[in-house]
Amino acid sequence: MVFVQSTQETAFVVRACAEERVPIIGFGTGSSVEGHVLAVHGGVCVDFSQMNKVLAIRPSDLTATVEAGVTRHQLSAALAGTGLFFSVDPGADASIGGMVATGASGTNTVRYGTMRENVVNLTVVTAKGDIVRTASRARKSSAGYNLTQIYCGSEGTLGLITEASIRLHPQPETAAAAVVNFPSVRAAVDSVIEAIQLGVPLARAELLDALTIRAVNAHSRTSLFERPTLFLEFVGSKAQIEAQAALMREIADVHGGGSFEWALHPEDRSRLWTPRHHAYFACLQLRAGSRSITTDACVPLSELSACIDETQADIQAHGLLAPILGHVGDGNFHCVVLIDPLDAAQYDAAEAFSRRLVARALRCGGTSTGEHGVGLHKMRYLQDEHGAEGVALMRALKHALDPDDIFNPGKVIPV
Amino acid sequence: MVFVQSTQETAFVVRACAEERVPIIGFGTGSSVEGHVLAVHGGVCVDFSQMNKVLAIRPSDLTATVEAGVTRHQLSAALAGTGLFFSVDPGADASIGGMVATGASGTNTVRYGTMRENVVNLTVVTAKGDIVRTASRARKSSAGYNLTQIYCGSEGTLGLITEASIRLHPQPETAAAAVVNFPSVRAAVDSVIEAIQLGVPLARAELLDALTIRAVNAHSRTSLFERPTLFLEFVGSKAQIEAQAALMREIADVHGGGSFEWALHPEDRSRLWTPRHHAYFACLQLRAGSRSITTDACVPLSELSACIDETQADIQAHGLLAPILGHVGDGNFHCVVLIDPLDAAQYDAAEAFSRRLVARALRCGGTSTGEHGVGLHKMRYLQDEHGAEGVALMRALKHALDPDDIFNPGKVIPV
Repeated sequence: MVFVQSTQETAFVVRACAEERVPIIGFGTGSSVEGHVLAVHGGVCVDFSQMNKVLAIRPSDLTATVEAGVTRHQLSAALAGTGLFFSVDPGADASIGGMVATGASGTNTVRYGTMRENVVNLTVVTAKGDIVRTASRARKSSAGYNLTQIYCGSEGTLGLITEASIRLHPQPETAAAAVVNFPSVRAAVDSVIEAIQLGVPLARAELLDALTIRAVNAHSRTSLFERPTLFLEFVGSKAQIEAQAALMREIADVHGGGSFEWALHPEDRSRLWTPRHHAYFACLQLRAGSRSITTDACVPLSELSACIDETQADIQAHGLLAPILGHVGDGNFHCVVLIDPLDAAQYDAAEAFSRRLVARALRCGGTSTGEHGVGLHKMRYLQDEHGAEGVALMRALKHALDPDDIFNPGKVIPV
Repeated sequence: MVFVQSTQETAFVVRACAEERVPIIGFGTGSSVEGHVLAVHGGVCVDFSQMNKVLAIRPSDLTATVEAGVTRHQLSAALAGTGLFFSVDPGADASIGGMVATGASGTNTVRYGTMRENVVNLTVVTAKGDIVRTASRARKSSAGYNLTQIYCGSEGTLGLITEASIRLHPQPETAAAAVVNFPSVRAAVDSVIEAIQLGVPLARAELLDALTIRAVNAHSRTSLFERPTLFLEFVGSKAQIEAQAALMREIADVHGGGSFEWALHPEDRSRLWTPRHHAYFACLQLRAGSRSITTDACVPLSELSACIDETQADIQAHGLLAPILGHVGDGNFHCVVLIDPLDAAQYDAAEAFSRRLVARALRCGGTSTGEHGVGLHKMRYLQDEHGAEGVALMRALKHALDPDDIFNPGKVIPV
């Protein structure tokens, strides 16, 4: 374990490891969920927690530059008073470097994009120990191959990310929250699709299925209708928000939406969204002592409700306990499969379910992972998703940028 | 010259050329401006004009899939009645495949992003003649390296793009145009920066410098004040637009903005924007018989006005005639350097100016090319921009994906 304190020091470590062909595993906060940071071939863990300086905040450029170990909450605190915020919100207080490495996203992607759309440039250390800045600080560029996007989502397998310049967004004037339940997943999803088509700039659109609502009710002592439920957020001026919410309410009405609860004041908004914030932990409490295996399918919006319906039928047919949460605007949903960690049969059943789910997502024109990444666990699906030829291209890229396979070996690309 | 009609046929052509190591140059509509399609090492031109089918429009997914030769106007026509539109607008009626290959952008990038943010997946033919789809149809994915973004902006040097799935956006309810002049470039640019910081969702923010306005006045018989002038577009509901315009007017007032002209009706909007639409041709008429060399610097917003001021001083000091147009929201501006095509000295002076401009943009933290690409003419600047180590990474990528250098050789990466 090496705690690096600068890009130069990181380059020194990489050169030393490269000489001895010792594997290097970058580490941010460890919040990734696909085994990204497991040292399956041993090696040196390069911990970025001491590279935690916010190097620059440039309000006129709407950008900031941070060291890789800066966390999301730390950056938010540094931005206080600027009127700007960093939008990517994967839930955990992840490091910015880790979020770049996994191409993180989260609940407000529908409006502000994933990490990929919010990274301006990176400083990376290559396999030779060279230090490369992947792009200038301009908001756009056509100057050669897109090195930034090659490293974004590379999961530490092509180099180490030591600094990142990221986009900031203006704090919205105000925000509002709404919660509305539906007779079916399809009704909920169709409402969101129609809203997007009509240009309602939803800031968040989260779906909790009926089972998740049941979990939330038990956990938070709420009495929400146990139906598929949307948690929505609107941002803008008060007038804009009211117009958006009115349109959303009309759309929901057409699709059989139940009582449209809505809140403008911060504390009311927070209360309304509490079930969503607690959903994951509420799910874990559905069966005492259970652990979860969380899936991450993402499909085109038109396929989302059918894919969720089929997945729920699969869950029932196999007697699994697996509440579903979705980032509906992106077509991304997570099944939280609850298992007894000591029961191998339950683990195998969850794994088999996960395989069927990935196959279903791919049949729907989607992907095996919307935001969690490949890591160790999704490598087996890469060829199904991209074909042998696509994987060959990725392997050629890996060989080109990391010929001795020193960066996070055994992840992303099956060697 | 080969007119391909399908991806399979394209793969056949690539395999045939690869066997004989004959260069392959993809061709869309020829609207690129950096010599991208010149066959500097001879070879076969693969013309995509007959691959011109719109394969699918999926309103629920807000995506369309097209063959590479479909042009922007053709796609717009196909989208009529869907309530959706394709946002990337580089001016010319370029092919979608060409726009992907050059990473095109244009006037409404400030709101909708460049081609990079609007491409979902691509079908490409690799150097081996393999057919690869770079990603699924999901709106986001973390499943391995970002092949889509490797090919987007690769300028035909890594493979041939035969199909593209692209994002569509809801047609805004209505639009409004505004024109306002300023005492200085800085005042104009600062107004746009403040508007963006305050969350005004400008759809377009174009700057014409005083000389461009003079050219427009002469060309279009208008009588605009010959001062730096912003051409703005607002979109949304009528109420939203009015709120945006009111805020923009206040901001402009603070910065000494002249009469704020504003139009809501389509014909008035069109009249107000006519000078912008005719600006390039008006510039060419400033000196009869001249040709233009167009630059493409892009810098962080905070550096934009200083960079333009210094550039205007440079233009004056060297006795050049070079009106300036800028996509202010992106930090991108073009100098239209007018020269007598038969006068070698003028050509050399324009080239020298272009070199100084690129050096200035890089000093400002910017890029040698915001949207036109590298092609033949910007290769000389790649190392200044990315360093020897950055260029080495790009070269490694080129060697990995096109080991025999058959795709558009002599472009982007100096071999």
